[in-house]
Amino acid sequence: MNYITSFEQGNKNMTELLGGKGANLAEMQRIGIPVPDGFTLSTKACIDFYNKDEKIWEALQEEIEKNIIDLEEKTGKKFGDEKNPLLVSVRSGASISMPGMMDTILNLGLNFESVEALAKKSGNSRFAYDSFRRFIQMYGNVVMGVEHNIFENEISRLKTHTKKTNDTEITADEWKEIINEYIIIIEKNTGKKFPLDPKKQLLGAIEAVFKSWNADRAIFYRNLNKISHDIGTAVNIQMMVFGNLGDTSGTGVCFTRNPSTGENVFYGEFLLNAQGEDVVAGIRTPNPILELEKIMPIIYKELCELRENLENHFGDMQDIEFTIENEKLFVLQTRSGKRSAAASVRIATEMVAENKITKIQALHRVTDADIETLLHPKLDEKEKMKKIPLAKGLPASPGGATGKIVFTANDAVEAKKREEPVILVRHETSPEDISGMHSSEGIITACGGMTSHAAVVARGMGRPCVSGVSEIKIDEQRGLIMIDDLVLKSGDVITIDGSSGEVFEGKISKIPPQIDAAFQQLLEWATETKTLGVRTNADTPKDVARALEFGAEGIGLCRTEHMFFEKDRIVEVRKMILSEDSEISEKALQEIEKFQKEDFIEIYKILEDRPICIRLLDPPLHEFLPQSDYEIEELAEMMNKTPLHIRERIEYLHEVNPMMGHRGCRLLLTIPNLLEAQVSAIVSAGAETQKKNIEIMIPLVSHVSEFIILKSRIENIVKKYNIQCRIGTMIETPRACIIANEIAKHADFFSFGTNDLTQMTFGFSRDDIGKFLPEYLKQEIFEIDPFQEIDKNGVGELMKNVLSHIPENFKTSVCGEHGGNGKSITFFDEIGIKIVSCSPFRVPIAIVAAGRK
Amino acid sequence: MNYITSFEQGNKNMTELLGGKGANLAEMQRIGIPVPDGFTLSTKACIDFYNKDEKIWEALQEEIEKNIIDLEEKTGKKFGDEKNPLLVSVRSGASISMPGMMDTILNLGLNFESVEALAKKSGNSRFAYDSFRRFIQMYGNVVMGVEHNIFENEISRLKTHTKKTNDTEITADEWKEIINEYIIIIEKNTGKKFPLDPKKQLLGAIEAVFKSWNADRAIFYRNLNKISHDIGTAVNIQMMVFGNLGDTSGTGVCFTRNPSTGENVFYGEFLLNAQGEDVVAGIRTPNPILELEKIMPIIYKELCELRENLENHFGDMQDIEFTIENEKLFVLQTRSGKRSAAASVRIATEMVAENKITKIQALHRVTDADIETLLHPKLDEKEKMKKIPLAKGLPASPGGATGKIVFTANDAVEAKKREEPVILVRHETSPEDISGMHSSEGIITACGGMTSHAAVVARGMGRPCVSGVSEIKIDEQRGLIMIDDLVLKSGDVITIDGSSGEVFEGKISKIPPQIDAAFQQLLEWATETKTLGVRTNADTPKDVARALEFGAEGIGLCRTEHMFFEKDRIVEVRKMILSEDSEISEKALQEIEKFQKEDFIEIYKILEDRPICIRLLDPPLHEFLPQSDYEIEELAEMMNKTPLHIRERIEYLHEVNPMMGHRGCRLLLTIPNLLEAQVSAIVSAGAETQKKNIEIMIPLVSHVSEFIILKSRIENIVKKYNIQCRIGTMIETPRACIIANEIAKHADFFSFGTNDLTQMTFGFSRDDIGKFLPEYLKQEIFEIDPFQEIDKNGVGELMKNVLSHIPENFKTSVCGEHGGNGKSITFFDEIGIKIVSCSPFRVPIAIVAAGRK
Repeated sequence: MNYITSFEQGNKNMTELLGGKGANLAEMQRIGIPVPDGFTLSTKACIDFYNKDEKIWEALQEEIEKNIIDLEEKTGKKFGDEKNPLLVSVRSGASISMPGMMDTILNLGLNFESVEALAKKSGNSRFAYDSFRRFIQMYGNVVMGVEHNIFENEISRLKTHTKKTNDTEITADEWKEIINEYIIIIEKNTGKKFPLDPKKQLLGAIEAVFKSWNADRAIFYRNLNKISHDIGTAVNIQMMVFGNLGDTSGTGVCFTRNPSTGENVFYGEFLLNAQGEDVVAGIRTPNPILELEKIMPIIYKELCELRENLENHFGDMQDIEFTIENEKLFVLQTRSGKRSAAASVRIATEMVAENKITKIQALHRVTDADIETLLHPKLDEKEKMKKIPLAKGLPASPGGATGKIVFTANDAVEAKKREEPVILVRHETSPEDISGMHSSEGIITACGGMTSHAAVVARGMGRPCVSGVSEIKIDEQRGLIMIDDLVLKSGDVITIDGSSGEVFEGKISKIPPQIDAAFQQLLEWATETKTLGVRTNADTPKDVARALEFGAEGIGLCRTEHMFFEKDRIVEVRKMILSEDSEISEKALQEIEKFQKEDFIEIYKILEDRPICIRLLDPPLHEFLPQSDYEIEELAEMMNKTPLHIRERIEYLHEVNPMMGHRGCRLLLTIPNLLEAQVSAIVSAGAETQKKNIEIMIPLVSHVSEFIILKSRIENIVKKYNIQCRIGTMIETPRACIIANEIAKHADFFSFGTNDLTQMTFGFSRDDIGKFLPEYLKQEIFEIDPFQEIDKNGVGELMKNVLSHIPENFKTSVCGEHGGNGKSITFFDEIGIKIVSCSPFRVPIAIVAAGRK
Repeated sequence: MNYITSFEQGNKNMTELLGGKGANLAEMQRIGIPVPDGFTLSTKACIDFYNKDEKIWEALQEEIEKNIIDLEEKTGKKFGDEKNPLLVSVRSGASISMPGMMDTILNLGLNFESVEALAKKSGNSRFAYDSFRRFIQMYGNVVMGVEHNIFENEISRLKTHTKKTNDTEITADEWKEIINEYIIIIEKNTGKKFPLDPKKQLLGAIEAVFKSWNADRAIFYRNLNKISHDIGTAVNIQMMVFGNLGDTSGTGVCFTRNPSTGENVFYGEFLLNAQGEDVVAGIRTPNPILELEKIMPIIYKELCELRENLENHFGDMQDIEFTIENEKLFVLQTRSGKRSAAASVRIATEMVAENKITKIQALHRVTDADIETLLHPKLDEKEKMKKIPLAKGLPASPGGATGKIVFTANDAVEAKKREEPVILVRHETSPEDISGMHSSEGIITACGGMTSHAAVVARGMGRPCVSGVSEIKIDEQRGLIMIDDLVLKSGDVITIDGSSGEVFEGKISKIPPQIDAAFQQLLEWATETKTLGVRTNADTPKDVARALEFGAEGIGLCRTEHMFFEKDRIVEVRKMILSEDSEISEKALQEIEKFQKEDFIEIYKILEDRPICIRLLDPPLHEFLPQSDYEIEELAEMMNKTPLHIRERIEYLHEVNPMMGHRGCRLLLTIPNLLEAQVSAIVSAGAETQKKNIEIMIPLVSHVSEFIILKSRIENIVKKYNIQCRIGTMIETPRACIIANEIAKHADFFSFGTNDLTQMTFGFSRDDIGKFLPEYLKQEIFEIDPFQEIDKNGVGELMKNVLSHIPENFKTSVCGEHGGNGKSITFFDEIGIKIVSCSPFRVPIAIVAAGRK
């Protein structure tokens, strides 16, 4: 069994085995890019590591040793050598990028002998001992589990003692002192000696990287990004190069295009005299890449060539990490660059124009999440103009966000549970903050650049982010931030504009997003290729208009009950439900019919001849009832009843499992007046506007008789008006799927309500899964959340069964949430669904998904 | 189209067309039994009547007229004739017996001419005019819709005026007066004249009988007895014979065996000088049939021969209505007699012994409801012996019942909703009381015999009934009954013994029923023929012992959570759920493990080597939490927490749709300690008792991973003990049905939880269907309640799908309520289920159903 591949042996197609990083390092070496030598332990090694009680087994040890010997030969350096020591980095790298999620060890190979050699070779003893202490500190923390701040305290103590303020003032001898302290600290805290043998160091580091695959933050990230927990990470062992050998050295990260806007310009940052992690971790604020031209013109030119080559070779915008060691350029990594949603669309469409990718490829490049973000609201510019920004940082991730200030990831998570929008304010973010970032509306960091952890992660998540706001002083202890004289405290509301980098006090309204030309282009390509119809779920004229703008071809689900909730209407609805006097209840129903008719007229006019599918009342009646004492008392007075009486009626209508209770067609069958009022509103509005293409949909059918009886009652009402209607049903109970062929004999169309169908097929209540679904995903019992992505093996099988038992040209659609989920749409298209319908903002997602083929 | 069949043309196999009564009248005439001539309008005529706007169409009118002419020729009498008038009865008769549910008209054909002829012919003018006024009264009420008491008031007025107390004192002339009043009343109340033309009378009566098919009480009865609403009723037109021509005439009802005990003795009642309806309606208390031997020995002998002939000919115990007109015997009806549950078993087994039916036929003769009634508790004889009965009536329907006194059907229905057991006390019952009788624990009537309405209906329903308790004086107005000096009021508790006819004050305990020899015999025959395994759902040693007595072959469902509810246990369970301190919670779990282990040891010992299938914890945790303030405070003190804290935890655990929430395997997967405790209890108890055949069952699986992970965790626990277990799963979510073949690869067995499967397949919450299912049954949207009888087309299809995708010898069972429902069991047997499991009292039902084949 061969678990290790040297960079020379690999190529870019070996991602699954070598991870993204390893495969690309190999590929770069193959095409002549200057990559420091090294080798990769495969993901298979990681998987087997977990199968073998989390120990590195003997055969693997031997293979590592053999590869180290090869590497020593290639580089002419030797592990632990007193003259020319081999130092390596040990980095994780899964087949799917998980930036910052797993551990990295640098400078491995240093000990009391090799550090001297490094001092001599670099001519910089301070650098060598600083590197050694960094290595011990990193290793002590990552591999041996000693807390980070124990080491930091030691440095603080020394600085206090020697009255120094910056690390850079610490001398080589003082670092030596600290190194000795570190080694004692490690032994005291772990009961184990710090390993001075580089081979032992290496095995420890590899083990730690393997283990970091299952660190909480990595699991969280995979759950968030729906990455399988089974694939494992590769480990890359690579000769160290140093960006911190003085001002002829440096390190940087660059993107072949602007990852924030997508503009085709060279984009990146660098730091002189720094290790690569310094840029990513955002501890120092780096310089724009363009400035390198002045400082190191040759290197800059070399980088520009690399930019061209790598993007062309990999056929996508690249994110490149490089190090300059004594004016020599090394590339440490290249990968497809994470980009903002806008950038994603712009890059994809421009690369089509540049003949680098096809239209279909472009559709695949833009993800559902990208489109969702693009359609996220931005700040209202007019309102913004009237405000003076408190501070300005880097526009790290676009979009506007308003929320209360919180200082910790935990507070953000807690606020999310209370549905309180917050802005997370941090010096810098680290992988531990992921869940907090996800729970926030937006992120501000005081340090860090455009490629810092905060920036990269926020862009990936579609969260607005402003990074490097250096004016902000954060006093986490007291829960304050200070900007000049202004003091804001935890809980104060601020607004950020991630597209401009501005921070404002208070709230700024957001405005609905526009579809720009690039996106419009993408939608047109999708519309050309797709065969699936895309409609929208909309119940108000405003939503309908927006959805049509976004490309919806009609309404696939108009929920009549959504018209019930406006202030003057809900009173009538409540009267209708609560009155035991049939006259009052009948009068309330007339009012309901009136306002519904008005709504329909308005919607019909906007739609013109486009189809509209209207679902009759679906939720249980008690959903419309008042809950607060005040509302109950108000209603009681209005109805001339006692509050107690109203409460009793509410209590009577209470249900144990409302999701499976008296709702949908069960209401329509038992309260015929309600059916009459709704259908009359629909068809009288239709007659008045001469609307074509009205479809009336009966919810929650599980028995063919339910459908037949309601259909005949509906037809009797429709008959009174000079209008044509099609009458169909939701397919949203498992039983409806089983007997669909019977229903199909009577129905004009089916629309799958995949939300309810998923609930009933699994026996999951969407309102209650919070107590176990996250745990299910964590334990990998489920690979996906079946409410986000259709469950192909279960719910999908039921759907396929329906489609195989009805005539091929029978009109079927999907109007559950899944109708706006890319992977689900692909599945629906494959099994023969004719139309999907989703919320207006998801219409473009559905169009693009339907266009990918 | 031929809608009418004369008695000479029909036979007993034409039930569907002629109804039970019509077919049997024809059959009797065919085999020479003295049946008055007549003819039958078929059920098809009734169905077409409803298809033709509820009018009797011309062609049918002509056919009726033609048949009347035939009947006139046969009988030598003529409609409306002044000398020898033809009088007929008009009776309903569906293909399935619905006693008393529809309307009957007697003496039709009387008018001012024919009544004179009748007076002359009978030599009894008073009888003739009494008959005429009865006819007008009946016709006025049934056909023309005039309220009964308006007529009765007229009689009362006359009696007050003439100072008479009994109807019998009223003279012919006085009846004439009343007849004139009646005719005026009818015209005043309906705006229509009372028809004096017999042909018009007949058409009106036929129309009324057709319409009575859809009277509320008939619909209720059909729903109750699961009779289709589509089959319609036939109408029998038959020459009248008179039992009220004086003391050489009479009428009676007899059974070929005792319908209460099943004893093979001649059984029945008669009244001299009475019309047939007088016996059935229970207005006068009739004499035992044996007394007829002394009064009319020849007739009695003739009746005894009839008894023999009819039972042999029809192959079942017969219920025979007869009339003696001037010492000539006529049979007006024969049908399979309704009988008590005990009688049903005794008759079936004795008829096998008499070689009259086969064993399989015997199994079909005894219904599920019979067995259920037989297994109903009886009064504790010892306790009964210590009490003196308040009164004694006729033992009309066996079994003991205790409840509060109510006087109206409505009050009984209301009490049922409050789950308050009541005894319905009535002078006599009528078809309007059906729903009230069904809502009562038992029934008492002051009048009426063993064959009165109350008696017949109560026996059919399996409700204990004491009829004809003449000592009771009922004062409905004041809500009182008086027995001698004792006054009981509405709401007082009484107990009745329907097997002895006794009525007691207060409560008497009931004891579990025994299986008598006849029933034992039946069970043995069923056991011989059945192939399906029958187990029981039982969780306590007591239930297990009882079920084994009843013939259960093991436990098919042992619900571990049922062991949680005893006082000292529930505290530990609550601690386990509510404690946030893992130590306390762990300790509580140890206690739970301890008591569960003890329970299992006890159950295992009773079971010996018989199999036991134990289901791991299924319900959501909040089901175990306290609700009342007192309990919460008590628990808070015990746990050293504030009540507020406990309330918050309870609130936290609240679920919107608990049926589809955090329960079943979802709990076991997220709280591994709970799994450990339960499985440890099961297997350690097993190891200690060397129990074989333990099956552990995982509830609510919907994904194969759930099963695989839990199975492996269970196996890890089982490994620690020297014991073998089989591990299987409930199939109770639709998704489990869809992917069952995947699960089958890992599971040792399946048990269908048809309750939950029905809930999720329909999307019906059992706790909430009360608001629409009754209406669904009434509107005939559903033919059956799918929670009582398995839904073959929906749930059944899912089950069939499972069975067709797993190996044929894979062990499958059903442990939902349907496992104790005869029709469902037949279905399960047909589709290849191997075992059914049901509550102990339903085990005999399951055995008999499985034996029917």
